[in-house]
Amino acid sequence: MPLWTVYHPVDAYSTQERREFANKIVGFYASRGLPRFYVTTVFHEIGRDCFYVGGEPADNTVRITIDHIARQAGDAARREQTRKEIGTIIEQFTGAKGLRWEYHIDHTPNDLWMIDGLVPPAAHSPSEKVWAEQNRAIPYSAD
Amino acid sequence: MPLWTVYHPVDAYSTQERREFANKIVGFYASRGLPRFYVTTVFHEIGRDCFYVGGEPADNTVRITIDHIARQAGDAARREQTRKEIGTIIEQFTGAKGLRWEYHIDHTPNDLWMIDGLVPPAAHSPSEKVWAEQNRAIPYSAD
Amino acid sequence: MPLWTVYHPVDAYSTQERREFANKIVGFYASRGLPRFYVTTVFHEIGRDCFYVGGEPADNTVRITIDHIARQAGDAARREQTRKEIGTIIEQFTGAKGLRWEYHIDHTPNDLWMIDGLVPPAAHSPSEKVWAEQNRAIPYSAD
Repeated sequence: MPLWTVYHPVDAYSTQERREFANKIVGFYASRGLPRFYVTTVFHEIGRDCFYVGGEPADNTVRITIDHIARQAGDAARREQTRKEIGTIIEQFTGAKGLRWEYHIDHTPNDLWMIDGLVPPAAHSPSEKVWAEQNRAIPYSAD
Repeated sequence: MPLWTVYHPVDAYSTQERREFANKIVGFYASRGLPRFYVTTVFHEIGRDCFYVGGEPADNTVRITIDHIARQAGDAARREQTRKEIGTIIEQFTGAKGLRWEYHIDHTPNDLWMIDGLVPPAAHSPSEKVWAEQNRAIPYSAD
Repeated sequence: MPLWTVYHPVDAYSTQERREFANKIVGFYASRGLPRFYVTTVFHEIGRDCFYVGGEPADNTVRITIDHIARQAGDAARREQTRKEIGTIIEQFTGAKGLRWEYHIDHTPNDLWMIDGLVPPAAHSPSEKVWAEQNRAIPYSAD
């Protein structure tokens, strides 16, 4: 968690751009205390014969799905803040270069999630801080 | 929203068939007032070495996932109606040509969704009608 | 349902290993009475230029998403049991060969799901038993 799945047209991004995009995404979550390795980004290059927006072949649209597990946006104000900040990151790698975009976030159950055989520590717990500092899953006792 | 992800065997569809399939899907939502460009359909051609149903390599099954955001099916009768109509569309592009199929719909939060930097207008609002008529995202004031 | 989507590095698995993995997954659900053909597993081989963990190119991580529909984990004890058993299966095909892994499960609405034109029978119903025995969707009357 979070998992970003990015559907994009063929040749929309160089490898370097994908890496920069992935890094900006990680920065957003790391600034909230999440371990960097929680963030996975998968890019799918989709040919226009397999990608349709409004029923028309699409070669100028980036469609992103985001699964949130470890942190679920809280009250309305926080959700708006999350929505805007994520929109700002995406805009840099889409609208700014002439691509249209859409994203949505899904929330999935916190207790049906594992990394490397471990249940990730509670949000903001001391163990989560250790995971963030070490940037890997480490056996821990409940805080 | 909605996002349809269609996993299908290699060579199950021509480009023309994918486009017709995508258009039928759009028609379903447009008949309910949704802007056509809300509907994204991504086709993934999956080789039988990567596609398993019941643990066996699959080359005759189409598996579809659907994310709904802007409209969430209401009471039981409406949900049944939605389920049936979507099943009828899928059947035309699967069962009718000898392919087995399965789909499921997920609902995701309405307020964690953006298109081209904008929060889409409320369902059935005047601004949504404008978006539908213009078939694109346009800045608007709250209705 | 369930649908497993497995993102893995290039050449992480042979076709034989993918099939064994898919079979182990099916075994887990079949032991709970689910028809084997309910279980779909899609493998996506993702190049390191398209797969980022913590913002770094990933070639040693398997990221799995699981959609559950027909059975939703019940109380906390059952959820823990589900989480552990699934973790044990994944570990055999990842950690045991030096790959890092992460999975999460999403729950989707039971009544927005169809197979081959039919609404699957209720969990643990006589008709579901028939579907499991025959390993295919068969028209039935409500139990």
